[in-house]
Amino acid sequence: MAAFMDKDFLLSTPTARRLFHETAEGCPIIDYHCHLNPKEIWEDVRYENITRVWLGGDHYKWRLMRCAGVDEKYITGDASDHDKFIKWAEVLGKAIGNPLYHWSHLELQRYFGWYGALSAKTAEEVWQLTKEKLQQPGFSARGLITRSNVSIVCTTDDPVDSLEYHEKLAADPTFRTNVLPAWRPDKAMNIEKATWKDYIAQLSAVTGMTIHSFEALKVALQLRMDYFAAHGCTLSDHALNYVMNAPATEEEVEAIMARRLRGEAVTAEEEAAFKHAFMTFAAGEYTRRKWAMQLHYGCRRDNNKTMFERLGPDTGYDCIDNYAPSAQTAAFLGSLEAAGKLPRTILYSLNPNDNQAIDTICGCFQSSEAVTKVQHGSAWWFNDHFQGMTDQLTSLANLGYLAGFVGMLTDSRSFLSYPRHEYFRRILCRLLGEWVEDGRFPDDFDLLSEIVRGVSYENAKRWFGFPEK
Amino acid sequence: MAAFMDKDFLLSTPTARRLFHETAEGCPIIDYHCHLNPKEIWEDVRYENITRVWLGGDHYKWRLMRCAGVDEKYITGDASDHDKFIKWAEVLGKAIGNPLYHWSHLELQRYFGWYGALSAKTAEEVWQLTKEKLQQPGFSARGLITRSNVSIVCTTDDPVDSLEYHEKLAADPTFRTNVLPAWRPDKAMNIEKATWKDYIAQLSAVTGMTIHSFEALKVALQLRMDYFAAHGCTLSDHALNYVMNAPATEEEVEAIMARRLRGEAVTAEEEAAFKHAFMTFAAGEYTRRKWAMQLHYGCRRDNNKTMFERLGPDTGYDCIDNYAPSAQTAAFLGSLEAAGKLPRTILYSLNPNDNQAIDTICGCFQSSEAVTKVQHGSAWWFNDHFQGMTDQLTSLANLGYLAGFVGMLTDSRSFLSYPRHEYFRRILCRLLGEWVEDGRFPDDFDLLSEIVRGVSYENAKRWFGFPEK
Amino acid sequence: MAAFMDKDFLLSTPTARRLFHETAEGCPIIDYHCHLNPKEIWEDVRYENITRVWLGGDHYKWRLMRCAGVDEKYITGDASDHDKFIKWAEVLGKAIGNPLYHWSHLELQRYFGWYGALSAKTAEEVWQLTKEKLQQPGFSARGLITRSNVSIVCTTDDPVDSLEYHEKLAADPTFRTNVLPAWRPDKAMNIEKATWKDYIAQLSAVTGMTIHSFEALKVALQLRMDYFAAHGCTLSDHALNYVMNAPATEEEVEAIMARRLRGEAVTAEEEAAFKHAFMTFAAGEYTRRKWAMQLHYGCRRDNNKTMFERLGPDTGYDCIDNYAPSAQTAAFLGSLEAAGKLPRTILYSLNPNDNQAIDTICGCFQSSEAVTKVQHGSAWWFNDHFQGMTDQLTSLANLGYLAGFVGMLTDSRSFLSYPRHEYFRRILCRLLGEWVEDGRFPDDFDLLSEIVRGVSYENAKRWFGFPEK
Repeated sequence: MAAFMDKDFLLSTPTARRLFHETAEGCPIIDYHCHLNPKEIWEDVRYENITRVWLGGDHYKWRLMRCAGVDEKYITGDASDHDKFIKWAEVLGKAIGNPLYHWSHLELQRYFGWYGALSAKTAEEVWQLTKEKLQQPGFSARGLITRSNVSIVCTTDDPVDSLEYHEKLAADPTFRTNVLPAWRPDKAMNIEKATWKDYIAQLSAVTGMTIHSFEALKVALQLRMDYFAAHGCTLSDHALNYVMNAPATEEEVEAIMARRLRGEAVTAEEEAAFKHAFMTFAAGEYTRRKWAMQLHYGCRRDNNKTMFERLGPDTGYDCIDNYAPSAQTAAFLGSLEAAGKLPRTILYSLNPNDNQAIDTICGCFQSSEAVTKVQHGSAWWFNDHFQGMTDQLTSLANLGYLAGFVGMLTDSRSFLSYPRHEYFRRILCRLLGEWVEDGRFPDDFDLLSEIVRGVSYENAKRWFGFPEK
Repeated sequence: MAAFMDKDFLLSTPTARRLFHETAEGCPIIDYHCHLNPKEIWEDVRYENITRVWLGGDHYKWRLMRCAGVDEKYITGDASDHDKFIKWAEVLGKAIGNPLYHWSHLELQRYFGWYGALSAKTAEEVWQLTKEKLQQPGFSARGLITRSNVSIVCTTDDPVDSLEYHEKLAADPTFRTNVLPAWRPDKAMNIEKATWKDYIAQLSAVTGMTIHSFEALKVALQLRMDYFAAHGCTLSDHALNYVMNAPATEEEVEAIMARRLRGEAVTAEEEAAFKHAFMTFAAGEYTRRKWAMQLHYGCRRDNNKTMFERLGPDTGYDCIDNYAPSAQTAAFLGSLEAAGKLPRTILYSLNPNDNQAIDTICGCFQSSEAVTKVQHGSAWWFNDHFQGMTDQLTSLANLGYLAGFVGMLTDSRSFLSYPRHEYFRRILCRLLGEWVEDGRFPDDFDLLSEIVRGVSYENAKRWFGFPEK
Repeated sequence: MAAFMDKDFLLSTPTARRLFHETAEGCPIIDYHCHLNPKEIWEDVRYENITRVWLGGDHYKWRLMRCAGVDEKYITGDASDHDKFIKWAEVLGKAIGNPLYHWSHLELQRYFGWYGALSAKTAEEVWQLTKEKLQQPGFSARGLITRSNVSIVCTTDDPVDSLEYHEKLAADPTFRTNVLPAWRPDKAMNIEKATWKDYIAQLSAVTGMTIHSFEALKVALQLRMDYFAAHGCTLSDHALNYVMNAPATEEEVEAIMARRLRGEAVTAEEEAAFKHAFMTFAAGEYTRRKWAMQLHYGCRRDNNKTMFERLGPDTGYDCIDNYAPSAQTAAFLGSLEAAGKLPRTILYSLNPNDNQAIDTICGCFQSSEAVTKVQHGSAWWFNDHFQGMTDQLTSLANLGYLAGFVGMLTDSRSFLSYPRHEYFRRILCRLLGEWVEDGRFPDDFDLLSEIVRGVSYENAKRWFGFPEK
């Protein structure tokens, strides 16, 4: 029997253990997709207690507590930090099989040096211990990032953002981690949203342009891309319902935008046509600028209206949307390719059923511009667990070139989430170890080590082409 | 090499063996979803031979025989009971990997004390042995239920049913198992069916009401719910094509119903609108009455018209329907939630691809009303096998709170089907054992035992809130 | 640790090893679905070097090279054969987890007696070795087929084909393998294609009939089926977007065809109606002639327009299409069954998510005409790997009768691809071995051996009913 989450956690073979400890473990982290707040990094925030850092904004944990029947009072309500943590410990203690169990314990081990099992019984001990530790040096935002050996962080930023804190961080030589912006223009694209017109007004204000047409919108976005580029941005990110293919003429797109600017609603067809035009424009710009494009889909958001009104978005009320026609995805990428507008791209779906379709789509659009120019993105969010990562890696290996994979991201809002990279690397080493010890690949440590280093760090470094700090 | 289906069948680790033998094995069975005939329980029927009990009405077995090329004569035709059994034994003997292999052998072991392998070679021996045993005490309907340690059975009942036999069974103190009705109003909802008008007439007759409108239909159903409630019903069950979201106004719904009552056909859109209204009404009633709601979908029925005309429904000619838009499921549950009409709910799909979407949908609608108010139902029917159950449990653990799961059901028409609970429990213990011995969860027997007891028995007992006999 | 791809490759248990070495390994191969060129068999072609035989037309390998960022020059371009092979070796050497890694090494072992690991380091050695060996006797097309113990090969042939080389091969007693045509009338069915009218003209020319109507098209196809039947054909093959159910009247179908013959385009609905009529006709003919019908779907082809214009179809630019409504598949087969027009059928989807739906559909249409009259086809193309085959076999075993399965095909254009049958058989033996050694099936070697021999060879022999050479 393997010991509970010890140093060889998930490393089921000698090959896996050697690969992890001699190669993966020491690789720096490139966290190319997260939701950290650059202001908090700049201000080097600290946390009063473990509830603030763990339960302050983590909808994964909130969701699990709700599944376990915990009253909202102890989740996002007015219970004390202490009582919230106790409830969380009770729930987590029985959450067998849930990735939060592993993430949480990896965090307790790596940051707090605590190797027990959190539960109702040990909750008070952990509350005290973490409270004390959090006052120590090394537990500020920057301290946690530095201790996690993070070389690059890409935050998620709106085109209207000032990037003020990225600028400050870039100018600060005392902080070694390169904190770069990533361009996420969803608000400009989501024409169906009630708030879209206001957003366009905001974008007008920031650019000093009147945005009365799609043509003008494109110019405004180009201005902001220039601004982002000047701050080191080389990466974009789009949340889509699905990757649609709904070509329309320029006139039609302008007419849709004009109607919407007059305050009229758009139909589902018009929404798709507008988004298709938007994405085609965006992809062309990324290609020209050598930016990478992340497309993620397969999510239906804000399903619980009562709670949305109380807590807003990203509070644990999203689910997998299983509508993702691969034919449209392929057709859209094909149209970009034919127009010379296909940038380096990462496709992510929240529906694990899409793994194989994605891998075969990627295979249709590769080129010598990059090793695996079109990537199947890491198993994240609803798939960020042992099974989900194993399935994504296996599908990618079966249908593509695993050795070219850019690897893991956290997608996280927390400064304690870096052990998810460790979790991923352990699963990667386990899988390769199993294959090797099953006679499916030669027991050639140098070669395996090269592959592991690539997926853990080197591929992302090369593929994204981030500027040096 | 593990011995063939011995006492440690599927229990691949010491942890699994201890969990099963010390905890799961002894838990009573709550079979909250089955198709037993309460009249047969009341009459305490006996079976002349193993063919009558195994092959009389089990479309799972029929289907396997057809896959193996057996002539219908030996399945539902006029061959002798003896010859039918011999054919079945021949087929089963080679049915490697099929769950019927395990179910059948568990039944031979538990009820008949026979530990061999059924095949053409052993068929005559088993025919004789079971024929003799079936004459012994303890092999009547009640005897089999009692020997299986079943504390609660929920049958599947139509709103027009008299519940006569539930009443008789409730009044009989000599039979300890609590046999409760479950409310299944599919016939009232399926407005597209040719038989719907006749069914409405039947419901009119039973309630003494003229049902000329949707309003009246709702009142009639309320009367019958009152009647069911008086007989201990706290659980409903709906077979849907998919969980649709097709809101319509009251006027529209009344117009659809009026047209249909005049004998006109309904369009697919009208069907969806009517069913949406029906389900919204039903869910509201369940909420008010504190009944639970089971929604199952993902099935296309009666695909073989020739055989349907010969044998009728539920004879082995159904298949997985892969149309199940998770966006509509989420939207429908969301509309119930917003209206305060979401009861405790179990979602089941026959398509295993829906596992992850279901788990994420469940997570959007939890509350402190119950531990895991919205449940991902057990792997059943086409998924009621080692792989299907393992996948459902893993998905639930990854994305929800496995410790709150209400566990297994048989969905069966047979008094010998209780070993499916044993099969489930073995698979559960195996999975937890693997996780623990892989270092993914602490080796804490008391805690694991609590989880296993919960999923095997305690959770269902608490979650459903069945009345005592 | 298992040695790298030795004689016990993938055979993880003693049971698996015995089953493979004593039973599966020695079975002849029936390759009932491939794309070999009968002219090349007749001419007994030879290959100058390994690049010609491996990289000349294998889009699987091209695709992997593109994923790894190799310039097209080294794939389908004007680089030398030597340099192309070196690039391939570099890529393959790091392609951990990809089935091409296993296929390629099995081919190097079985045909060239080389047991190393191909990589940049060993590329020159393998280049030389294979160059020399390819000059030896036994390395011609026929030599490779004979050495592979292939008893039957079915090629893929268009209704207008002369079958000249099948005729010559049939008349040649020196070549023992039975090379039979398979009927693939896709070009006659694909009314939406620009080339359809030209194809109809070609069919007119071959049959000497004017084809001005659907009625006439059917007669022409019947004539060609007679011709194919006279050349030993008993097997058809259809590539569909999905198995559609779109019934239309004869008049409607004739009108669609008339419009198209006049050069007009057809709508998506008209296309589906025409194809439905076409497939209904075809299935009826197959039933009458006792031919088997293969339906495969789940593919979107030629997604990269730039490369399509350069290289044409089947060059590595296809992907999984995830639109495959199981309800339509079931309805279509149901309509055939009701009309007495359902032949022995094999259903294949390129989307592994369809496995379970397919198995349940098959189960609705079995009969005593054959053991498993309706088959779930082997995991092929995008699923032709350890995981894909394991999943297909497991799903089939769970939901059907694995012992009746007709087993593997290569779908290949290469004379070196027969080790894919070995790969499949190893995976089959591994799976059965695991089940047996886990106590899930009796350790009865004779019975297991019978099942393995059936799936490897005997079932296909019986089910297809190929004529003797």
